[in-house]
Amino acid sequence: MKKTRTVVFGCGVMGRRAAEALLGKSSFELIGAVDVNERILGSDLGELLDLGRKIGIPVQRADQAPLGEADTVVLTTGSHLRDIEEQVNACIDAGANVVSTCEELFYPWIRNPKAAGRINARARLRAVTVIGTGINPGYLMDTLPLVLTAPCLSVRSVTVTRMMNAAARRLPFQKKVGIGLAPAAFRDAMDRGAITGHVGLRESMQMIAAGLGWNLDAYAEEPPAPVLAKAPTETGLGTVAAGDVIGLSSVAYASAGHAERIRLLFHAYAGIKDEYDEVVIDGEPPVRQRVTGGINGDTGTVAVTVHTAARVVDAAPGLKTMIDIPLVRFVQ
Amino acid sequence: MKKTRTVVFGCGVMGRRAAEALLGKSSFELIGAVDVNERILGSDLGELLDLGRKIGIPVQRADQAPLGEADTVVLTTGSHLRDIEEQVNACIDAGANVVSTCEELFYPWIRNPKAAGRINARARLRAVTVIGTGINPGYLMDTLPLVLTAPCLSVRSVTVTRMMNAAARRLPFQKKVGIGLAPAAFRDAMDRGAITGHVGLRESMQMIAAGLGWNLDAYAEEPPAPVLAKAPTETGLGTVAAGDVIGLSSVAYASAGHAERIRLLFHAYAGIKDEYDEVVIDGEPPVRQRVTGGINGDTGTVAVTVHTAARVVDAAPGLKTMIDIPLVRFVQ
Repeated sequence: MKKTRTVVFGCGVMGRRAAEALLGKSSFELIGAVDVNERILGSDLGELLDLGRKIGIPVQRADQAPLGEADTVVLTTGSHLRDIEEQVNACIDAGANVVSTCEELFYPWIRNPKAAGRINARARLRAVTVIGTGINPGYLMDTLPLVLTAPCLSVRSVTVTRMMNAAARRLPFQKKVGIGLAPAAFRDAMDRGAITGHVGLRESMQMIAAGLGWNLDAYAEEPPAPVLAKAPTETGLGTVAAGDVIGLSSVAYASAGHAERIRLLFHAYAGIKDEYDEVVIDGEPPVRQRVTGGINGDTGTVAVTVHTAARVVDAAPGLKTMIDIPLVRFVQ
Repeated sequence: MKKTRTVVFGCGVMGRRAAEALLGKSSFELIGAVDVNERILGSDLGELLDLGRKIGIPVQRADQAPLGEADTVVLTTGSHLRDIEEQVNACIDAGANVVSTCEELFYPWIRNPKAAGRINARARLRAVTVIGTGINPGYLMDTLPLVLTAPCLSVRSVTVTRMMNAAARRLPFQKKVGIGLAPAAFRDAMDRGAITGHVGLRESMQMIAAGLGWNLDAYAEEPPAPVLAKAPTETGLGTVAAGDVIGLSSVAYASAGHAERIRLLFHAYAGIKDEYDEVVIDGEPPVRQRVTGGINGDTGTVAVTVHTAARVVDAAPGLKTMIDIPLVRFVQ
């Protein structure tokens, strides 16, 4: 079997985890690593990953990396399209498919139609596939709900709920959801843009609507609401006093035909004992589905991204979404 | 938007339900109906469906039907490949894509490799797509479990369980699982082939293995085991006395690398209060997923089949499986 030759573009936490996953899978050959950070440029990826040995893959600038020899580039450098478009272009121009964790790339047709059009045209010209994915957006709140509508003759509404115990996640994530802040400091952080809530609810919603053929006539996303400790609560950032912030909740909803059709609920705060990812479809038949315990966001994002890297090789060229390419599943 | 022009091939229970569904969806135009039954040939489909009006679509023999004008033919005539191959050929030769509920067509590459090869070659020659699907095989015990492996970096095993209250299903289904028989009569019916258990477990398993890139080294399917009433049990076929049959259980499992990797459990008997469809993935991360209440088999099969009929129009030509085509989801 031909291996998928892959370059990781971005050697941050997610890029390094993707590199580890790719190295552990027999279907892939990792052939390069890209970053801009002077402190790691030139170092061997094996050392960067703490493998205890060199693996002959240096961290390089994009213009020195073997993008032209890659089947797929796994790009993990940013959440916003404006920050990654040039990098995506470099991969396309080198003739490589691109799979990125960039949240805005997952479904850019509404929020960033011009950039989406540019990337799509360029990718088609070079006959490569470009796609944004991950666990969320990319899977739990969009692709999986769409898959679950397949057995429904009719669908009136789709509701997706994530219940995550933020205290069990990475410390940067715990900071990102405001753990330990006083309510006023949480609002300040929101005003400054330091706390944004979950990025990608809008993209997930637009993807569901597109997948079901619904023309949305209204979309709303509430500002993330702080969740306050009712009692002293243990977190990765220490014990949070009652009344202070232990995380946040985000809600987004959309209507079509003047009825609410999609609702996405994202809860991430410390102390949730009953973690789950749930999809409820009001339809014929109704579908009430739950992943008990939820799916770890970091591991899930790495897995979905790496597995998609194998699927884009045979996908149609252009800027695609998860419903356009062959079904993404585990790859050895 | 261009409608998918569709012909139903087979006007039995599933064909009629597919026709009803297609007539109710704005993305489809139903243009023909095929059957061999003299009693309904020539009658109008509107009458056959008890719509209370004619709809201008007569039930015709295949050689008189507008197969050549169809984008997709929905074929619901049989469970075995040998019974449908000629019908599939007629559709292919007319230039129509084919979506069939034929269980053996869902993944025919192992059990019927020659027929699969013939159909694949013929479909490629005419640039049409042929696919078998439905709720099971087609979705609950194969496609959905594969989708659920996407966020797993590693997968050690996949276990799928269906728990169905047979007493709530169609009467022919209740007969098919042996409800009301004495244990000896159940064994006789099995010996005669009148009770077969669930058709398609093998195909589901082979599809999961193919999707995950596993080379199975052993496959086993236990003969369906009768489930006996512990107390008098209400069913659609009357009250079943304690000690008599209220349904059956089927188990199939497969190993790769000398470890069990896939297990499929199919339970259909009267009196199950807690119906569900469950997927458990032993992997990193583990996934424990359940559709509470389960998904009605007939409705699900009609929906998955009709929704797939829209997706094959843009799929690559040949005999395909559910992991080769764009993601199947609800279609309006």
